[in-house]
Amino acid sequence: MKQLTSDFWFKRSICPIANVLDIVGDKWSLLIVRDIYLGKRTYGEFLQSPEQISTNILANRLKQLEKSGLITKVAYQKTPIRYQYELSEKGSDLLPVLKVMLVWADKHLPDSQVLPKVER
Amino acid sequence: MKQLTSDFWFKRSICPIANVLDIVGDKWSLLIVRDIYLGKRTYGEFLQSPEQISTNILANRLKQLEKSGLITKVAYQKTPIRYQYELSEKGSDLLPVLKVMLVWADKHLPDSQVLPKVER
Repeated sequence: MKQLTSDFWFKRSICPIANVLDIVGDKWSLLIVRDIYLGKRTYGEFLQSPEQISTNILANRLKQLEKSGLITKVAYQKTPIRYQYELSEKGSDLLPVLKVMLVWADKHLPDSQVLPKVER
Repeated sequence: MKQLTSDFWFKRSICPIANVLDIVGDKWSLLIVRDIYLGKRTYGEFLQSPEQISTNILANRLKQLEKSGLITKVAYQKTPIRYQYELSEKGSDLLPVLKVMLVWADKHLPDSQVLPKVER
């Protein structure tokens, strides 16, 4: 059931949940959203997170998140060119998803621990 | 950073988000949770959802969801044996995740449409 809409091609169905999962339904995308929320900004900072994302998966997910409009890539240095990533409004609007996951984990995975915000 | 806790092995980190994604961070698991919430109960009913999950992925995800304690498998017929699936409390507690995804989709994917509940 593929359908083209104003600016989005429904890949699997018209169901909103299916479409959200087509964008962030993997083990890494929401961790990058988490990292940016925690204050991380650069490729190198994302690589240092405890889950040890590989460089190729990180590069792929950053591209996908940018393409989906969840993050924006901003040059912060010219020579050599260096980029940092920020959550767009669309990306920030996903933070409630992370928050209800925290509520779930607080009840069902009580030994997990929220990572601290990054001092900048 | 692997750590064994009371009843859960942290695969990637102690972060609750990472651990939730280790359980349901894929394109299919939360669609099965959605289907059960909508009133579907059997393997055959899950196969009829518009996303057309394949039989092998469905069998795998049902096993994983059962192993994670999110769904329970109940025999409803003896000869031949037939099973139906229900959300456990732990699984039902994930429904707020779906609900905030709906809120996000309502704003950012306005052409998506919530699937109707199944009449039984």
